[in-house]
Amino acid sequence: MADDNEGSKGNEIESIEMVFKDTVIPSWKEQLTFRAFIVSLGLGVMFSFIVMKLSLTTGIIPSLNVAAGLLGFFFVKTWTKMLEQCGWLKHPFTRQENTVIQTCVVATSGIAFSGGFGSYLLGMSDAVADNSSDADSPYRSISTKNPSLGWMISFLFIVSFIGLCSVVRLRKIMIIDFKLIYPSGTATAHLINSFHTPQGAKLAKKQVSALGKFFSFSFLWSFFQWFFASNGEECGFANFPTFGLKARDNTFSFDFSTMYVGVGMICPYIINVSLLLGAILSWGIMWPIIEDKRGSWYDKDLKPGSFHGLQGYKVFTAIAIILGDGLYNFVKVLGKTLIALRGQMKNKEAQTVLPVAADGSKTDDTAAISFDDQRRTQVFMKDQIPTWVAIVGYVGIAAVATIALPYIFKPLEWYYVIVLYIMAPALAFCNAYGCGLTDWSLASTYGKLGIFLIGAWAGASNGGVLAGLAACGVMMNIVSTAADLMQDFKTGYLTMASPRSMFMSQVIGTTMGCVIAPCVFWIFNSAFPDIGKTGSEYPAPYALVYRNLATLGVEGFDALPRHCLQLCYGFFAAAIVINLVRDKAPKKYARFIPIPMAMAIPFYIGSYFAIDMCIGSLILFIWEKRNKTEATAFGPAVASGLICGEGVWSVPKAVLALLKVGPPICMRFLSRKGNVKLDDFVATLGR
Amino acid sequence: MADDNEGSKGNEIESIEMVFKDTVIPSWKEQLTFRAFIVSLGLGVMFSFIVMKLSLTTGIIPSLNVAAGLLGFFFVKTWTKMLEQCGWLKHPFTRQENTVIQTCVVATSGIAFSGGFGSYLLGMSDAVADNSSDADSPYRSISTKNPSLGWMISFLFIVSFIGLCSVVRLRKIMIIDFKLIYPSGTATAHLINSFHTPQGAKLAKKQVSALGKFFSFSFLWSFFQWFFASNGEECGFANFPTFGLKARDNTFSFDFSTMYVGVGMICPYIINVSLLLGAILSWGIMWPIIEDKRGSWYDKDLKPGSFHGLQGYKVFTAIAIILGDGLYNFVKVLGKTLIALRGQMKNKEAQTVLPVAADGSKTDDTAAISFDDQRRTQVFMKDQIPTWVAIVGYVGIAAVATIALPYIFKPLEWYYVIVLYIMAPALAFCNAYGCGLTDWSLASTYGKLGIFLIGAWAGASNGGVLAGLAACGVMMNIVSTAADLMQDFKTGYLTMASPRSMFMSQVIGTTMGCVIAPCVFWIFNSAFPDIGKTGSEYPAPYALVYRNLATLGVEGFDALPRHCLQLCYGFFAAAIVINLVRDKAPKKYARFIPIPMAMAIPFYIGSYFAIDMCIGSLILFIWEKRNKTEATAFGPAVASGLICGEGVWSVPKAVLALLKVGPPICMRFLSRKGNVKLDDFVATLGR
Repeated sequence: MADDNEGSKGNEIESIEMVFKDTVIPSWKEQLTFRAFIVSLGLGVMFSFIVMKLSLTTGIIPSLNVAAGLLGFFFVKTWTKMLEQCGWLKHPFTRQENTVIQTCVVATSGIAFSGGFGSYLLGMSDAVADNSSDADSPYRSISTKNPSLGWMISFLFIVSFIGLCSVVRLRKIMIIDFKLIYPSGTATAHLINSFHTPQGAKLAKKQVSALGKFFSFSFLWSFFQWFFASNGEECGFANFPTFGLKARDNTFSFDFSTMYVGVGMICPYIINVSLLLGAILSWGIMWPIIEDKRGSWYDKDLKPGSFHGLQGYKVFTAIAIILGDGLYNFVKVLGKTLIALRGQMKNKEAQTVLPVAADGSKTDDTAAISFDDQRRTQVFMKDQIPTWVAIVGYVGIAAVATIALPYIFKPLEWYYVIVLYIMAPALAFCNAYGCGLTDWSLASTYGKLGIFLIGAWAGASNGGVLAGLAACGVMMNIVSTAADLMQDFKTGYLTMASPRSMFMSQVIGTTMGCVIAPCVFWIFNSAFPDIGKTGSEYPAPYALVYRNLATLGVEGFDALPRHCLQLCYGFFAAAIVINLVRDKAPKKYARFIPIPMAMAIPFYIGSYFAIDMCIGSLILFIWEKRNKTEATAFGPAVASGLICGEGVWSVPKAVLALLKVGPPICMRFLSRKGNVKLDDFVATLGR
Repeated sequence: MADDNEGSKGNEIESIEMVFKDTVIPSWKEQLTFRAFIVSLGLGVMFSFIVMKLSLTTGIIPSLNVAAGLLGFFFVKTWTKMLEQCGWLKHPFTRQENTVIQTCVVATSGIAFSGGFGSYLLGMSDAVADNSSDADSPYRSISTKNPSLGWMISFLFIVSFIGLCSVVRLRKIMIIDFKLIYPSGTATAHLINSFHTPQGAKLAKKQVSALGKFFSFSFLWSFFQWFFASNGEECGFANFPTFGLKARDNTFSFDFSTMYVGVGMICPYIINVSLLLGAILSWGIMWPIIEDKRGSWYDKDLKPGSFHGLQGYKVFTAIAIILGDGLYNFVKVLGKTLIALRGQMKNKEAQTVLPVAADGSKTDDTAAISFDDQRRTQVFMKDQIPTWVAIVGYVGIAAVATIALPYIFKPLEWYYVIVLYIMAPALAFCNAYGCGLTDWSLASTYGKLGIFLIGAWAGASNGGVLAGLAACGVMMNIVSTAADLMQDFKTGYLTMASPRSMFMSQVIGTTMGCVIAPCVFWIFNSAFPDIGKTGSEYPAPYALVYRNLATLGVEGFDALPRHCLQLCYGFFAAAIVINLVRDKAPKKYARFIPIPMAMAIPFYIGSYFAIDMCIGSLILFIWEKRNKTEATAFGPAVASGLICGEGVWSVPKAVLALLKVGPPICMRFLSRKGNVKLDDFVATLGR
């Protein structure tokens, strides 16, 4: 999800490069400073923790670009200020260096997402398999692989760099020739550019201060909450029955998570409203009804969490919507991509460089190329990366992968890997192009394609589930890096960073990510042993979804409880219809139509985070009503502070858990009747 | 405690009456409008609830003048605005009318305090006697009287009006001749005057809006808290172990009471700091030490709350400080009064009207009387109240009281009453004068004098405890009304309200108070049957203190546990020494020396409200650091909103309790160990 809040800033200044006209652009080697990578390392670790926590709780990951931009600027600026006052400053802090940090941090923390620790990778584990529909499958032993530091790091090194190679050639086509927008990348670039104007630096200082304040608040509040969540799932603020006990038992409560309030402030209103609608539809209406059918629709003696009971409905209806929405968008973006490409080709033949707007239509602006574009193109074309590097890199890595991956995942035959690597560049191109047009990376959809394709090919008896999940990992990494890196190149283009320094920064960032992300996951996994279990603090909802997708692909629909398949068909169709209506309805109504993908998320996880996020929306809404300018300038900073504070608290929290230090107090909520009975019992305990 | 925040406003405008020069002053009958009394009735009921709740919880009652002024202005202004738009408005809203409302509301809610529902009156009850040092006295049956609506209303009617009569004659002397300051009255007058200037009305509107916002917040928050305080003393936010379970068991916790946060915002910093110091000294240091002496200093098999154990130390050390502080201030104010009076008399002989400053020294300002003073004096002297009305009233009421009071309280002989009524006018004069100089009404100190005097005279075997408490009531009512009403007259003088309309407003307000206050108390008493019991929600700490004072006066020191008397002597002396040091030290250090009276309050009640109030101080302090002007203008309004919101919530809360509707949820805090043991037990309950 992109932070479009910054999108309009570019219009304020007519020509940005005129402002920077007299600033010397450092050479690409000068852009890669040591201090930049130190800061990137620190921020990379922090954002890895945040992304990891988000993927393990709900799987909703907002754009952390603003936070990364602000914090990177803040740390290097403080550092250079200090050196300046001591008279030791050799190189001033440039926006190119800032872009390098931004790129490196995004690359590092990107791995924490695309590494699949909250989805396909964790989906391979026994913990998730226990809860999934193939829990009792006869082939289970060959279709699980428990996480361990060694193979995870190797796997990530093998699959994460190939996206980089596939992108190098596309760079000029996408950015110079096609002039694609890449909204997130553009927004980040505007942010970085604004930091380095005197006026922007002043605003940035205030934004950093707002971020810092809400960071501290969020951190301390999470710390405070910790004390009351003593052992036992009933304890703590997470179980606060804000709307009463009955509502809480149906997951309707505000759980005091500042992180998700912040996420809600960053996400568009319609996402949060969709989440809430989905929560009401599922936990408020459907699940209570289905629960009443216990004994009729499904066996009433099932253990809780069994896929043949209510749990099956929850997960598979969600999957149906996700697939429906994914398919629709895949077709739509692919269609747009092809149409726009045809347009580009025609234009190319006519030897003109016509810019194409985001909706694929040609703009009439064939006038002389602006000063900004001229200067930027000049810089962008200077430090080329040779094509042979990309080709040799790609083929080399593919060769290593073909040999190594089947060693890591037994069911993944070498020829599957080759097929994947042949398909990948085309899909990477599609995704990078689509993302440039719509800001929507379809990485997870391509990943699901991998699951079904390879899973079905391998078959259940050959460990198809595991093969499918591994294929998903390979596919997702290539496709997601391609889109992410192109966004970064766009940022680099707009901030006049050298493509070579961007590339190096990406390589370094990816390398850091390949080590940091598995380590962060390992800390979480050691500290909280019930990761991936339904109802625990870290349910990692997508891990279960991905595993069940793989099972579905391999074994078909046999495992589903009664009427579940019909429901799934209905939701699948509904997702497509709602998307169609959204696209075809007049814009003034369309913006009130919910997004099916967002509606599906609470189906399985519960409503509490939807309520958190709606509170975030509400805060932003009131703020915008009262002072639009202030809300626009400081909303993203405040939200980032809230997200980062709780995210960073997860570090000491995990450390405490590793040291076996538990919270001292249990805050518990009892019904009146329960409490009366309890009172006598407590008297015997002396509290 | 006066709200000195408004004190400086008068200086902004050189002559207030010049601003109002062209405004016609309505006749005294026109000032007494029907709408004014309707609003006064509403506000009187509301403030009676607030004062009642405060007296029954901690006994700390802040100045509610700002709230009364703002709300009175708001309601009548809204009303007149509405009428004006309909074209029905006959009489515009004048500041005189505003003063009438203010006076009436203060008179009404004043009875809720001076009626002693949280002190001497409740101290007569069996509930308090059970916890007090004379619980096992052989004369207990003749020294208790349980509250009932009938005798309470009669008692109040008998004792509340006599203060009015005694004040009438003093009016001219105190305000015109002596030109006493009466800080609270002056501040209120400035507030009212400012409301009726166009600029002031604008500010008032904003202040009302701030008050309204925080009122709603406080009300809704208290409502929300209610849901979690299901039956059982362990439940709810009041038991939130903010600083851990161990700290909470020693009463150190933030109990989320917005009311006391508001009170803390109104009270001066030094009061709040003194409270916290007292809390740390007592609950943090002394009580844990004394508890360790269990078995050595006192019998270890005593039932909890017995006066021969820890409870005795708590209450009697607090009493020692209160008496020491009271004695010091009594002597000091009396001394000042006498010195200043001698000065006045000398001046009178010299036939000049020299104004005397607050510290008793003459001011050099013998120049022509200012325009303001001229006009005000003219109005003030116009509508006189005949002296014979006052004398007949006083003698008549005294006669009724002499006959009726011994009927209500058996041990209170008729000649005690006569003695009290002979002493009273002199003491009323002293208190009104002292209050005019220092803003400090010593009503409760005079009340204690009554306790000791009549209690000792009657003796234990004749129900001296009850006689003493009743005498306290008589004394306190006369003395406190005298000071309160003189404050009101000062307000009336400064806003050019007619003394006759002020007098009528006081009579009507007192009449309302005599009915409303007992009814409000009756509601609390019916809804919460354990009022006055140690450790309950409404411990009414001063009720126990007053009863123990009476027992002390009648029975001496026999009841005290070991070393307690020595501790009491120590604290008594310390209170006097600290006060001396405060007065003699240079001002720059003196303001950091705590106030002993404030330190004593948490001794018996606990620390939680001191923490609430310090949080209020902290909020105001930070606010003042950031924006002094805003904090000064809106601080009192915000504080009033916080106080009133929770205060008003006590109405529906009491109604719910009367209807036997309990909260549905119990929020409970358990230690880790306790929770583990509990988990198994809860499993058998199904929550």
